Amino acid sequence: MINPFFENKGPFRISEIFGFLNITKKIDDNDINISNISDLFSSTQNDITFFHSKKYKDLAKKTKASFCITTQNLKKELPESCKPIIVENVLVSISKVTEKFYPDSINDHFDNTCLNIIDTKFKNKVKYGNNVLIGENVSIGSNCAIGHNTIIEQNVSIGNNSFVGSNVILRNTLIKDDVNILDNCVIGKHGFGFFPNNNKNLRYPHIGIVLIEDGCEIGCGSTIDRGSMSNTVIGKNTFLDNQIHIAHNVKIGENSIIAGQVGIAGSTIIGKNVKIGGQAGISGHLKIGDNVDIAGGSGVIKDISDNSKVMGYPAKSLREFLKENR
Amino acid sequence: MINPFFENKGPFRISEIFGFLNITKKIDDNDINISNISDLFSSTQNDITFFHSKKYKDLAKKTKASFCITTQNLKKELPESCKPIIVENVLVSISKVTEKFYPDSINDHFDNTCLNIIDTKFKNKVKYGNNVLIGENVSIGSNCAIGHNTIIEQNVSIGNNSFVGSNVILRNTLIKDDVNILDNCVIGKHGFGFFPNNNKNLRYPHIGIVLIEDGCEIGCGSTIDRGSMSNTVIGKNTFLDNQIHIAHNVKIGENSIIAGQVGIAGSTIIGKNVKIGGQAGISGHLKIGDNVDIAGGSGVIKDISDNSKVMGYPAKSLREFLKENR
Amino acid sequence: MINPFFENKGPFRISEIFGFLNITKKIDDNDINISNISDLFSSTQNDITFFHSKKYKDLAKKTKASFCITTQNLKKELPESCKPIIVENVLVSISKVTEKFYPDSINDHFDNTCLNIIDTKFKNKVKYGNNVLIGENVSIGSNCAIGHNTIIEQNVSIGNNSFVGSNVILRNTLIKDDVNILDNCVIGKHGFGFFPNNNKNLRYPHIGIVLIEDGCEIGCGSTIDRGSMSNTVIGKNTFLDNQIHIAHNVKIGENSIIAGQVGIAGSTIIGKNVKIGGQAGISGHLKIGDNVDIAGGSGVIKDISDNSKVMGYPAKSLREFLKENR
Repeated sequence: MINPFFENKGPFRISEIFGFLNITKKIDDNDINISNISDLFSSTQNDITFFHSKKYKDLAKKTKASFCITTQNLKKELPESCKPIIVENVLVSISKVTEKFYPDSINDHFDNTCLNIIDTKFKNKVKYGNNVLIGENVSIGSNCAIGHNTIIEQNVSIGNNSFVGSNVILRNTLIKDDVNILDNCVIGKHGFGFFPNNNKNLRYPHIGIVLIEDGCEIGCGSTIDRGSMSNTVIGKNTFLDNQIHIAHNVKIGENSIIAGQVGIAGSTIIGKNVKIGGQAGISGHLKIGDNVDIAGGSGVIKDISDNSKVMGYPAKSLREFLKENR
Repeated sequence: MINPFFENKGPFRISEIFGFLNITKKIDDNDINISNISDLFSSTQNDITFFHSKKYKDLAKKTKASFCITTQNLKKELPESCKPIIVENVLVSISKVTEKFYPDSINDHFDNTCLNIIDTKFKNKVKYGNNVLIGENVSIGSNCAIGHNTIIEQNVSIGNNSFVGSNVILRNTLIKDDVNILDNCVIGKHGFGFFPNNNKNLRYPHIGIVLIEDGCEIGCGSTIDRGSMSNTVIGKNTFLDNQIHIAHNVKIGENSIIAGQVGIAGSTIIGKNVKIGGQAGISGHLKIGDNVDIAGGSGVIKDISDNSKVMGYPAKSLREFLKENR
Repeated sequence: MINPFFENKGPFRISEIFGFLNITKKIDDNDINISNISDLFSSTQNDITFFHSKKYKDLAKKTKASFCITTQNLKKELPESCKPIIVENVLVSISKVTEKFYPDSINDHFDNTCLNIIDTKFKNKVKYGNNVLIGENVSIGSNCAIGHNTIIEQNVSIGNNSFVGSNVILRNTLIKDDVNILDNCVIGKHGFGFFPNNNKNLRYPHIGIVLIEDGCEIGCGSTIDRGSMSNTVIGKNTFLDNQIHIAHNVKIGENSIIAGQVGIAGSTIIGKNVKIGGQAGISGHLKIGDNVDIAGGSGVIKDISDNSKVMGYPAKSLREFLKENR
């Protein structure tokens, strides 16, 4: 379950979903209820899923969903148990349907359920600074501290022995034990994902969360966006320096070390024991292996296999880079 | 009129202006009043202007200003109606005169006119968070929301249906309709412009504003500086991701998309429908055309014509870059 | 004395220090008191020091410390007056000993000694905004202003005519006269220094401070970390633009100008009259000379001598870079 936080307004009948997509079609099935929208892998028999790129055809063949938003070309990969819903633009269509299931996941206007911590149940449980605000659906473990002016908006869970600095903004975030979030971070806002459209870009829903595992440290002024259809994850004992930007759906493995001002674009997966030098940038939708060293200032634009050391823009083998730049 | 916000302390008599510049000169004209200091193009007959680079000679020939701060070499380009005032350093001299017309435009010390929003006329008009401060000369349209701890200092106008996040600081900024300003932004402070001087740099006045057109989104932790003698402008429906820095006098066209951690140096003009990838940097005083794609991590150091795709540092044709880096 | 702020819990007897290091050894000296831990150069006869790299052998030969944490290979460089304490990992051992002398220097949990400025002695001395907090051991000179929501934690000294913006967090920082700290900065937190260790990284103590000399300006959203065993220093009349990151132990000379989004990694020393263009990055432990120009976007990975102009990644002579990229 990727989404413990946003309220699912479903189920919707499949005829209603056709309506959301402006598809006029006689429903020749029973007009069954659809409980959720989910990816090809996670969907159950009561769900609707989506399939927009050949890259995912192996997952498509095995999906358990009963309906799938897809294209004329791709529909042949689906199993018989999954009925295709043919659309022109799969991503825009998913967006429309997701918005109906999770209407609260699109905008991140400030949380007006927040109360001053002195008016909440945390008053005697947590060590807190001046002017701390806490929204609805927040849990905080034992031996935690929350700094001055920090805003913990709706849908945040913090484990034990975790420390949040001052001027921090958290929402839609699950923080485990022994974590340090330093000053001025903004964690859990929607990602920079939308469909460009002249005069009015169309936002897509972000129903994922940010998950920060045990023992992490997140440096001052960093931003970590929540996922769209999956979570953004910072693995166990991974340390981030100041002014880092982690985009939506990024997953970073355990015991990694990321220096100041690094930026990681959306949906990139990074292994464990990875070291990334200051100001390096990593493009979106890449796979970086385990035990990889990325030198400071590098620009990574393709996948990197385990145990590699790279440097440069575009990043290449460190040995090669140093030879060429002797 | 580039400057709706700073109070013009003029008019000054031309003899007073000579005094500001330490020019001892018999005034053989009538000692007329000068209403304002403005650029070559915008000046009217009652204004003083300045001309410091041959690049602007076509504008100089047509200026309507009565006086112009310039150099011995350049003065011949001015029309007869415009009397040259010869100085050694045009920019320092402008700075001195501008400071007299607009003394409030140099420093950005915190605004001590701010009141808690609950003590202002916005109390029943705007949806607001905890600890929101509002300065003098602020207007806010209908259906707006202002997040927790946000400070709207003097000289801010916000249109309808616009949302400002938490921990934001705004000043000298005009925000139109349907705009989202996300958390932790600082918008409208003076630019990083000054005359380097051992032991004590000399600040120059910033009398421009930041103008954010309809439908824009500005990501978390971004900084947008106001202009010096013109405005900093973000065009309609342009979206900025997190941790972006936009320097003074930059103008970005409509429907552009700028990814995380991009930096744009002072006075650069960017067209419409431009896409800029994460961490790209653009030098100052450049012209980037319409429909340009700048790949993530690029460093742009010269003008780019319409419809180009570029990548690299220094940025070159995308095709060339990819060929060289296969 | 590099450390005016953290309380020294010493002296400790040398037998206790052996205990901190898990060294079981008969003490054949008098079990003397050790007052402090310090570097090779600064140590006095009552101190313990450390020596971990041949690079420092000239300093080692002359150290006045009575004891030195070092390795079997390096011990021969020490004078007879300084007894070696042989360990496997010098840096981890220093960390353990420093932590005993200065236990408050490891974590930066929010300062719960802070009071609202209206409840402090600064109430009638300083111009201040709304919701300003002041911790213990803070001094502020005459004619200063502190903006809204700013938090001045323990161990901060501010000179005369200095201005701190809004939403700023300061700790362990010495600010001299005529300084401007702009909005949203975080200054004085511990550096990104630790010993990587699977499952639980080991923080090392940061007992240095941040020192900001007369006439500096620090741009919005910048982060300056305090030093570990020495100070982080911003020289007189040096100006930093927005979103700059200065890591621990960095020292920048006077009259330097650093543009937006620059990052400087730990322990690098930068001369005076240095200009650094936007988004440039400088690796750690380098020496950049006086009057150096580093072009925007450059990645500096080796020392740069006085009066050089460099550009590129890795940075090379500007002339060479421009020739190669014509």
